[in-house]
Amino acid sequence: MQLFVPFAGQRPKTRLSEVLTAEERQEFSRAMLADVLEVLERARSGNPDIPAPTVLSTAPLDVDVPVVVDERPLQEAVNARLETAPTAVVMADLALATPEALVRLFSTPGDLVIAAGLGGGTNAFLARDSAFHVDYHGASYLDHLAIAREEGLSVGEVDSHRLAVDVDEPGDLTELFLHGEGASRDWLGDAGFELETTDGRVEVSRE
Amino acid sequence: MQLFVPFAGQRPKTRLSEVLTAEERQEFSRAMLADVLEVLERARSGNPDIPAPTVLSTAPLDVDVPVVVDERPLQEAVNARLETAPTAVVMADLALATPEALVRLFSTPGDLVIAAGLGGGTNAFLARDSAFHVDYHGASYLDHLAIAREEGLSVGEVDSHRLAVDVDEPGDLTELFLHGEGASRDWLGDAGFELETTDGRVEVSRE
Repeated sequence: MQLFVPFAGQRPKTRLSEVLTAEERQEFSRAMLADVLEVLERARSGNPDIPAPTVLSTAPLDVDVPVVVDERPLQEAVNARLETAPTAVVMADLALATPEALVRLFSTPGDLVIAAGLGGGTNAFLARDSAFHVDYHGASYLDHLAIAREEGLSVGEVDSHRLAVDVDEPGDLTELFLHGEGASRDWLGDAGFELETTDGRVEVSRE
Repeated sequence: MQLFVPFAGQRPKTRLSEVLTAEERQEFSRAMLADVLEVLERARSGNPDIPAPTVLSTAPLDVDVPVVVDERPLQEAVNARLETAPTAVVMADLALATPEALVRLFSTPGDLVIAAGLGGGTNAFLARDSAFHVDYHGASYLDHLAIAREEGLSVGEVDSHRLAVDVDEPGDLTELFLHGEGASRDWLGDAGFELETTDGRVEVSRE
């Protein structure tokens, strides 16, 4: 089994540019990647079937795990890896992920195991059959279910709030602030973000 | 064990008023309640430990399950029920809930079992100890963890995307459209909502 964590090295997290500078987005995305790798390491202890992760990066990167550089767009780079099965892909911005949630990804039955992201994304999946391929345009979650259907693959779903939140938009920072436990949550606090109570849900903001 | 589904009979879902009329909000909130009751019924079949639900309503209501009318604000009405333990409370707008997610609520160990909502809410909980009480102001999820800590109660968490999404704000309609399987999802489609692909996540809208 292979496990890849895709990471966009250049200009990461552009949808956070309203609230974070380019330099901050670099730092923050590195902190989230570190959190994901750390949580995967904890998931692997006691679960030897979970493979060691490789970062699939668009540019060279200094981290403590193997890095494969692939400059192609995410979809092409991931599909090249899916020619071998089983292959798992866990996004690098799942800063709320817990070891328990990731263990569920690997222990759920199905030719395709999928964890939906907010807004129709696909935040993590395990393809146990090389007939699966990704399509990240539009609502990839629906597209991936359709691809599985076309290929006759059985589907298992991981129903997890912590895997559903990929930190992409300013509103996601609130979820990280409320539930995060790692370096990226600390980074947000150090950067001056605070909880603000509104009429409905709480939000984070900074001066 | 008791199980309550709180329901605001008058002027429901005001935060959806940008996209739904008052009459539509009434219909839609009733469809979501029906979905929650249906999914609870399916969770109970095969799990006889899950009690039959009672709707805790601010006004008389015509549904197929027992209704208790309590005109007080949600917090007071719920706290009155928590004098008896164990008591579970499942919100009436969890239109993405599945039987599997609700079974997890009842099978997770802990004096307090809690399913967080987006934006710091508390979408479902099971209090196995009468020392627990609710505080729905602000980030109730954090407040509830703090109350459990003060009272020396053990906490179990249900990490579920489907329980994390309470349908309160326009953005939540997208999650329901993508993942819902019941009457409220059908209602949205019939009301003319459609998926729209944006730069990032998909969204629903109507003409």
